[in-house]
Amino acid sequence: MTLAQRATAEGFGTMFLLATIVGSGIMGERLSGGNVAIALLANALATGAMLVAIILVFEGISGAHFNPVVTLTLAARRELRWTEVPAYLVAKVVGAVGGVAIAHLMFRQTLFSFSQHARSGASELFSEFVATFGLLLVIWGCTRCRRDAVPFAVGAYIVAGYWFTSSTSFANPAVTIARSLTNTFSGIRPADAPGFIMAQSVGAVVATGFFRWFSARVPSLPKDIDVARESERELSGRVH
Amino acid sequence: MTLAQRATAEGFGTMFLLATIVGSGIMGERLSGGNVAIALLANALATGAMLVAIILVFEGISGAHFNPVVTLTLAARRELRWTEVPAYLVAKVVGAVGGVAIAHLMFRQTLFSFSQHARSGASELFSEFVATFGLLLVIWGCTRCRRDAVPFAVGAYIVAGYWFTSSTSFANPAVTIARSLTNTFSGIRPADAPGFIMAQSVGAVVATGFFRWFSARVPSLPKDIDVARESERELSGRVH
Amino acid sequence: MTLAQRATAEGFGTMFLLATIVGSGIMGERLSGGNVAIALLANALATGAMLVAIILVFEGISGAHFNPVVTLTLAARRELRWTEVPAYLVAKVVGAVGGVAIAHLMFRQTLFSFSQHARSGASELFSEFVATFGLLLVIWGCTRCRRDAVPFAVGAYIVAGYWFTSSTSFANPAVTIARSLTNTFSGIRPADAPGFIMAQSVGAVVATGFFRWFSARVPSLPKDIDVARESERELSGRVH
Amino acid sequence: MTLAQRATAEGFGTMFLLATIVGSGIMGERLSGGNVAIALLANALATGAMLVAIILVFEGISGAHFNPVVTLTLAARRELRWTEVPAYLVAKVVGAVGGVAIAHLMFRQTLFSFSQHARSGASELFSEFVATFGLLLVIWGCTRCRRDAVPFAVGAYIVAGYWFTSSTSFANPAVTIARSLTNTFSGIRPADAPGFIMAQSVGAVVATGFFRWFSARVPSLPKDIDVARESERELSGRVH
Repeated sequence: MTLAQRATAEGFGTMFLLATIVGSGIMGERLSGGNVAIALLANALATGAMLVAIILVFEGISGAHFNPVVTLTLAARRELRWTEVPAYLVAKVVGAVGGVAIAHLMFRQTLFSFSQHARSGASELFSEFVATFGLLLVIWGCTRCRRDAVPFAVGAYIVAGYWFTSSTSFANPAVTIARSLTNTFSGIRPADAPGFIMAQSVGAVVATGFFRWFSARVPSLPKDIDVARESERELSGRVH
Repeated sequence: MTLAQRATAEGFGTMFLLATIVGSGIMGERLSGGNVAIALLANALATGAMLVAIILVFEGISGAHFNPVVTLTLAARRELRWTEVPAYLVAKVVGAVGGVAIAHLMFRQTLFSFSQHARSGASELFSEFVATFGLLLVIWGCTRCRRDAVPFAVGAYIVAGYWFTSSTSFANPAVTIARSLTNTFSGIRPADAPGFIMAQSVGAVVATGFFRWFSARVPSLPKDIDVARESERELSGRVH
Repeated sequence: MTLAQRATAEGFGTMFLLATIVGSGIMGERLSGGNVAIALLANALATGAMLVAIILVFEGISGAHFNPVVTLTLAARRELRWTEVPAYLVAKVVGAVGGVAIAHLMFRQTLFSFSQHARSGASELFSEFVATFGLLLVIWGCTRCRRDAVPFAVGAYIVAGYWFTSSTSFANPAVTIARSLTNTFSGIRPADAPGFIMAQSVGAVVATGFFRWFSARVPSLPKDIDVARESERELSGRVH
Repeated sequence: MTLAQRATAEGFGTMFLLATIVGSGIMGERLSGGNVAIALLANALATGAMLVAIILVFEGISGAHFNPVVTLTLAARRELRWTEVPAYLVAKVVGAVGGVAIAHLMFRQTLFSFSQHARSGASELFSEFVATFGLLLVIWGCTRCRRDAVPFAVGAYIVAGYWFTSSTSFANPAVTIARSLTNTFSGIRPADAPGFIMAQSVGAVVATGFFRWFSARVPSLPKDIDVARESERELSGRVH
């Protein structure tokens, strides 16, 4: 696949993710008659279900990150080229913002509106740290042993994340930026976004370090394959 | 399988799909004490669950389209013979209408009744465009890389679709026609059906074009393997 | 496995199924503050989830029928010996009744109490016919093409069944008998049980006939295997 | 993997499990406006979803027990060395207690607080016996025949367990100890914890004995295949 195709995949996936987060939040709030738990239940199930669908669809094309911290930590672990990172990041942010606009158009809202939903304080920041740390652990751990089950693991983790963290587990800087542009159920005040993104980044860095220790003596699958390719190349070299 | 058997499979699958959409809508509205969100939650979970079941059952027989735009775009992509399209379409519409009648009989309603549920306006039409575009992307993308997971991807996508679009994601002309014949929770005013079907058709056409570009330079997996084997054979030939 | 072990598997599976149906019904009714839809949502999700678990566990041992009409139609299709049918049926009914007693003990109810929950009328009987017809279609269709996915297909179908039929899809004579012994949320008046069982039996017979036509020219997998074994035996015969 | 890595895996898994049980309980209670059924639905779905995610992640590393009775019965069945048991048990209890603290920090609670939630009486103890018996049956039965599906079987069983037992299926001594330290939705009075743990232990012992009888004459799959290959080789030997 060309980089253009892969970046497009990341963009469209993130777009559907955000359209779902924002759209189902609006629908949930409108229909639940003031019972926030029912709205959040719909919001969580819709988001988790959409994640399962879009990761199944785009995993084989672009890796289905939909998340800048996943892209950056993969590059840090040399599983993605640094030269491709900017395209991946831009595609995600553009897709995320586009997804918010699409949700607003579907529910007759103005295209963008700054959120007034306060999400601040140490406990919310700590929630984002925990949520992002866990998300990266789930992605990497599951990728190593049960690669085929990653879409279900991530979808399930985020369904749980909506409920077990006080911040409802944004765990994603592109999602955070985009959600600051919707003054609806799932929004976040622009002023609170930088804190969330910083907490997510710290969670990602700590998870990366932890996972490095954790998988220290476990050769990861890709390396195994590289070894195989290496010997193939050697063989091929000898032949020619 | 004969065409008669395959068309029957499409008909029965669509019948169970519509019986579920309409039946669970009636049950949800009756029991939820006026809280529409709870009714929609039941409606969405029942529909998604039934989709998982019937796609698992009929996929190996008829392809489990249950959707005229899927059948038509498959024919346009030459994955289905045009001569078989009419039987597929008729089976789906007959099955869908039959499913509505069955739901009505199970819940002591008159056999058919024109819906008075208004679903109109640009935002609802845009929702149907987005919903159908996404559905076809999910079906084709997942079929290419994760064929075994298609039932779960489609079921999950529709669960999300009930919540993230303002139209609750009909995304299917046969479903739209049939739902105009029930004056219950899941109905749509006959006058609004043509707009929905047109928006769905546009979504399908755009998705088809997009997917063609998207998978332009992607040789399908089997070809890759053949290429690999070919070079292996060449390599092996040179060695010996 | 011996017949005793397989019958025990059927008994314990059916016991956990009934304990879940009755127990989650009691819990749902107690906690939902009069909103029947929420109680039914919990009841449906718990039943579907338990079905996934127990079919995964017991499928490889006894086939995980948990349902007399499944056992009888399998015997009629010569996939189970008639001599083993009585043990299977007794185990299921004993297990089902035991499961009700266990649920009652867990929720401080008297061991058994005849239900006063009226479930009668043509629409409920028709519901049971539809529910059982669909259940057998799902079991056989999925067994043929996607054997590994049967637990998920059946669990998903029953989650949908709770909502799309007015009878909440008992679809099982052993379940019907046992549920007549609980005067709680999930009960059925003993006087209404025979009608339910008759409708389920008709559904099963019609499904068996339909499936025979439907898979007429499709050699089923087990036969293929038999052919393989036959040739092995022939080969082995020639050897000795 | 070293024992330190495996024990760490058990600790982190149990930590995320408890953070989810306690955190989603707090969130559910806060948002559900007094409807306990909605809070329990969120609590159950979050816990089941998190179990799916963490078992998928840690299964290939440490076995993903997260439960002292699983560790102990595995050691009794000689599938784990007794010398490794203490590290496994300590990791689980420390992780569980840490998970409660993390949940409290995320929701601005004091670090620990003894629960005042009474959970006593014969029916609750019997519930814990049934829940633990069933959990071990699910783990071992599914491990034998459908090892890849264990995460889904356990997650599904626990979702059902929240609803079909009056104790909401703790089924885990480490979970029980940790939940005595939170005076929120999911807590248990410290005085009631020993009874729960005893009932869980009895359930585990009975399940172990039952499963031994149950799988008495069932050669495990790999052996079957070996036998088949052996006879094939013999047959092939005789032919040539």
